[in-house]
Amino acid sequence: MTSAEDTARRSATLKDVAERAGVHPGTASRALNPATEGLVNRDTVRRVRRAAKELAYQPNQLARGLRIARTMTVGVVVPDLTNPLFPPIVQGAEAALTAAGYRTLIANTDNVGQREREMVESFDARQADGLIVASAMLVDPALSAAAAEGRPIVLINRYVDGAALPLVTSDDTSGIGQALRHLADLGHERVGYLSGPMNISTGRGRTRAFRELRGELGLDDAPALVEESAEYSVEGGAEAARRLLAAARPTALLCGNDQIALGALDAIRELGLSCPDDISVIGYNDMPFIDKLAPPLTSVRVPHAQLGSVAAEMLVERLTHGRADVRTVVLPVELVVRRSTAPVRR
Amino acid sequence: MTSAEDTARRSATLKDVAERAGVHPGTASRALNPATEGLVNRDTVRRVRRAAKELAYQPNQLARGLRIARTMTVGVVVPDLTNPLFPPIVQGAEAALTAAGYRTLIANTDNVGQREREMVESFDARQADGLIVASAMLVDPALSAAAAEGRPIVLINRYVDGAALPLVTSDDTSGIGQALRHLADLGHERVGYLSGPMNISTGRGRTRAFRELRGELGLDDAPALVEESAEYSVEGGAEAARRLLAAARPTALLCGNDQIALGALDAIRELGLSCPDDISVIGYNDMPFIDKLAPPLTSVRVPHAQLGSVAAEMLVERLTHGRADVRTVVLPVELVVRRSTAPVRR
Repeated sequence: MTSAEDTARRSATLKDVAERAGVHPGTASRALNPATEGLVNRDTVRRVRRAAKELAYQPNQLARGLRIARTMTVGVVVPDLTNPLFPPIVQGAEAALTAAGYRTLIANTDNVGQREREMVESFDARQADGLIVASAMLVDPALSAAAAEGRPIVLINRYVDGAALPLVTSDDTSGIGQALRHLADLGHERVGYLSGPMNISTGRGRTRAFRELRGELGLDDAPALVEESAEYSVEGGAEAARRLLAAARPTALLCGNDQIALGALDAIRELGLSCPDDISVIGYNDMPFIDKLAPPLTSVRVPHAQLGSVAAEMLVERLTHGRADVRTVVLPVELVVRRSTAPVRR
Repeated sequence: MTSAEDTARRSATLKDVAERAGVHPGTASRALNPATEGLVNRDTVRRVRRAAKELAYQPNQLARGLRIARTMTVGVVVPDLTNPLFPPIVQGAEAALTAAGYRTLIANTDNVGQREREMVESFDARQADGLIVASAMLVDPALSAAAAEGRPIVLINRYVDGAALPLVTSDDTSGIGQALRHLADLGHERVGYLSGPMNISTGRGRTRAFRELRGELGLDDAPALVEESAEYSVEGGAEAARRLLAAARPTALLCGNDQIALGALDAIRELGLSCPDDISVIGYNDMPFIDKLAPPLTSVRVPHAQLGSVAAEMLVERLTHGRADVRTVVLPVELVVRRSTAPVRR
């Protein structure tokens, strides 16, 4: 049976119309929607309309009724674009959204809660059909409200306490565990931890994993071996490392992200010590170019592009077929050993 | 004379209304515009309306008529968010736009012309009042058309041949000149140049500056000393460097951007050579973390955040007061000498 016969037997879908008109389904959808046809070349609109008429295409009125004005646009909200971990997340989301016929608009909150709130509100229907949000705080009224209203939102990396929103994240317990076992294998017993901010779920979760796992591995559990960095930044990391190194004598530092690790390297150098000879250092995220640093940094590799693409696929599923389950997808991570870690010096 | 008396004497402005209502002028503007009041908290809308009534505020109908539906949103279009030079541009633009009461939406084209076209078209009025575009190609039909229609657009870094659009850029001739003089001072005579793509204005402009200035400085002008990288990337730079090093014996390589320089460092290592002992390398942009590389890279520092903020100020000026001049603003650059450049070995 040919594809044309197949189409004739059942009612035509948007995909059939798009194929007949020789355009992407996303383009066909925009062309057939009075609210978005202005975004499409006029000749294309005519061609798609003709194809729809020839196939006696009936748009799914129920699905259309769910959202009066579809924009075929998805907003991606990130906390800090200058943190090299977020551009790959955006790129992964964009690739999946483009394949599904959506445009991507990005908003940067600079870790300012007020800006996130404005973005979440302004993206509502007017500018985007759905949102991917990587900037969530543990307490986040804007996202909690959006979740309560059932708005199509998928979170990446960071969750909101008590808000029922789907989440794509990576395995913090495994990442911290791989890093700690690597250090224990090298003979380290006094391992310090420089955590990210505790008002962000990744800061809290990785710290919790560190405290649990160092106990299991029989490492020193002195309270002075944990310090919180005020932000995920080089400066924040350097300050936390100075405090930790003034209060304790670790032979290794595990860090909540790579920027904090870069700050720790600065603090180690200020004390006239060297990495890895005096203190081993491990980062988290394996951000771009970290392999070209002096020394190349051992770090936990997080599949950022995949975080973005999986979140985009979940959102598209939701936008296409209505309500989806509020589930959490956890992607695996992998320790990448480079030259910032070495056997402990006795 | 008090501020209240002053307000009473002349007709009230939006700023007066905002002050009386205790909100930002941008919020007041959104609250008074039927097309955007949905973006503002309902209580705030009521408060702003009351203040407007009390001050007998008359919106500037002429200015309002210029754009039927203002979104108080500006779109920033970048070619590649994973290139660390673009996030600071975005951040600089955002800071200036936020101060002027605008939201910022970012779009990433991944250097795909079709995506840029879609973004420029979809941003038209529906999603943004104006655009800041850092992704221009020398031949760029979408931007040429937008320029011909008089749309409010400001370019950053890259211009379009023949399109009358305002541009904020930095001084390529000075940057290449400072780098070449530094190498000449170190005794280098055979300097290679790894250019960016020649279909982008920065690729063409810096190459032109290199050819002119090496002549003036009396350096070797063998054609084999110039190679074009297919893209501004580490891989593109490594391939161009391999071709150049197979055809010529430079003692120094000047690179069209920092990623190309990182690729050149890889190619130098592959040949069993070292930087700076055998070959000095200079990058361009001075991107974040480049000072922490092995070796820390000598590079031309471009004021990226300022490129963004100046472009945003020019666009806001245009959006506030109608047509602006099509002018080019050129910001100064500065060579930052680190450890990837050294005296030539004889």
